Amino acid sequence: MAVYTDVAADDLAEFLLAYDIGELLSYKGIAEGVENTNFLLHTSRGSFILTLYEKRVAAEDLPYFLSLMAHLASRGVSCPQPEKNRDGEICGTLSGRPAVIINFLEGVWPRRPNVAQCAGVGEALAKMHLAGRDFPLVRKNPLSVKGWWALFEQAASGADPLQHGLRALLHAELDHLDHAWPKHLPEGVIHADLFPDNVFFIGDKLSGLIDFPFACNDILAYDVAICLNAWCFEPDHSFNVTKARAFLNGYNRGRPLEAAEQDALPLLARGAALRFLLTRLVDSLNVPAGALVRPKDPLEYARKLRFHQSVNSIRDYGVETSGLVA
Amino acid sequence: MAVYTDVAADDLAEFLLAYDIGELLSYKGIAEGVENTNFLLHTSRGSFILTLYEKRVAAEDLPYFLSLMAHLASRGVSCPQPEKNRDGEICGTLSGRPAVIINFLEGVWPRRPNVAQCAGVGEALAKMHLAGRDFPLVRKNPLSVKGWWALFEQAASGADPLQHGLRALLHAELDHLDHAWPKHLPEGVIHADLFPDNVFFIGDKLSGLIDFPFACNDILAYDVAICLNAWCFEPDHSFNVTKARAFLNGYNRGRPLEAAEQDALPLLARGAALRFLLTRLVDSLNVPAGALVRPKDPLEYARKLRFHQSVNSIRDYGVETSGLVA
Repeated sequence: MAVYTDVAADDLAEFLLAYDIGELLSYKGIAEGVENTNFLLHTSRGSFILTLYEKRVAAEDLPYFLSLMAHLASRGVSCPQPEKNRDGEICGTLSGRPAVIINFLEGVWPRRPNVAQCAGVGEALAKMHLAGRDFPLVRKNPLSVKGWWALFEQAASGADPLQHGLRALLHAELDHLDHAWPKHLPEGVIHADLFPDNVFFIGDKLSGLIDFPFACNDILAYDVAICLNAWCFEPDHSFNVTKARAFLNGYNRGRPLEAAEQDALPLLARGAALRFLLTRLVDSLNVPAGALVRPKDPLEYARKLRFHQSVNSIRDYGVETSGLVA
Repeated sequence: MAVYTDVAADDLAEFLLAYDIGELLSYKGIAEGVENTNFLLHTSRGSFILTLYEKRVAAEDLPYFLSLMAHLASRGVSCPQPEKNRDGEICGTLSGRPAVIINFLEGVWPRRPNVAQCAGVGEALAKMHLAGRDFPLVRKNPLSVKGWWALFEQAASGADPLQHGLRALLHAELDHLDHAWPKHLPEGVIHADLFPDNVFFIGDKLSGLIDFPFACNDILAYDVAICLNAWCFEPDHSFNVTKARAFLNGYNRGRPLEAAEQDALPLLARGAALRFLLTRLVDSLNVPAGALVRPKDPLEYARKLRFHQSVNSIRDYGVETSGLVA
């Protein structure tokens, strides 16, 4: 949500000489991405996104994300594709920062996803999981169960002031998940952050998945569980079983969930809710003075966590086991 | 430099139904404009800028700016043109705010203007002044001499802490300008803020003038004086007489400065320097806590003011009087 680094037109034009993407016509800093600087470029060949990576840590993981996008795009997943320069490199340097150009995906993200869009994101997620099967790089998920304990340490002091009893809830849930977390479910490349603002549509037709900085190797059904949290609740926090059914059936059409994955889904959904509850709690305790971006409400995910705790089986998410396997 | 208002895709798509600009493909909040929210839209017909006006005061002056852009564009000035909706209106309502769509101008603004670009902006300014001659609406300049006294009242207390003696300089200069300010020079529509970030180029070719919220009716040569300040100094604050000559000759090719305007130019340039010195001083005293935008340096304009005080005639700006009239 910020432009941290201005780039002079001359410097940009010179940088672009190394690429075969046409003559620069215009560039605008866009208000997307919390940690990086993004520009929307128009050239004589079309539209592109230029990202300057502001943080060292992001640069370390760049090869994984960039190779993954290229890999997925080459297998028909609609996602941005990094542009190689004339030396075959996908990461250059501009204004002293790692700089990457990707093609621009048209589409808008749904502020209020409808049922058809939930079905679409299910299909796209399955397609992404299948396309990632032969991706050779590996990145462990730093925000899985073990990472949650570290977040808990940072967030614990702020829990009860926000909601009485929240700290105990977090601790008990972490304890439970740490012991019960499944160890033998199918794993692969997951997006790990496939919220509506990372999925573009033109009308109801999905036009692309974006923003892969959290992508990693983990349990595939955990990605499904994240989407259940991100797509299937209404603004009043009620669970919309019609959207969940559409999403799960959409996923199942591309990659049928195995019986063990179906059984584990309520637990994985609790884990996903806890993960976003913890990171939001940490973020809300670390708001820079005068920040323009309002931190997201952690308690939204406390409510979702309690909902998933009440779920007995995947049937409570709107689908019959048999229906999914069929 | 901010996106204040998010707009849901559905709301935007519905808003666009009233316009004949094609199907919405994407929209991005762009980091431009200090007081309004701007989105870059891609539609099946091309690119557009959607502006939501956040401040009441801006909305009051909208008819002047919007009519002016339409007027200038119809007379061949490269500037954005407001899109009319199917009812013939150029101002609608979106997310509870006045909302205007203009066509998108390709081009980049020069962070380091070169001589050819200075010549280009001179030509474009003259063309704009000529095109504005038959514009029927009138808006007095709220930031002319009388307005400067009000700014001085707000800024005076912060002057000496910034630079010893600055308050006395400001007061003496204001006194002088108030008495000496010319009363019989040609007037018309001026841009009043034609800094490099408001002028687009593709290479050295000027592609358009943007951002008319300060446009008003005032002394035409005062607009020339503003550009002398905005375009003809180097980052080390030295005056670049080659750029000034190119700029003034460019202007003169379109609209030759009269003898009285030439004589008044050093005084008008002092006024222009004082105006930006005062507004920057006021801005620097009113930075919201934690603001992301660093206020611009007022002292840059104290130096420019002192330079213009040392100027004897337009010859010191690099041109011969005869050369201009020729």
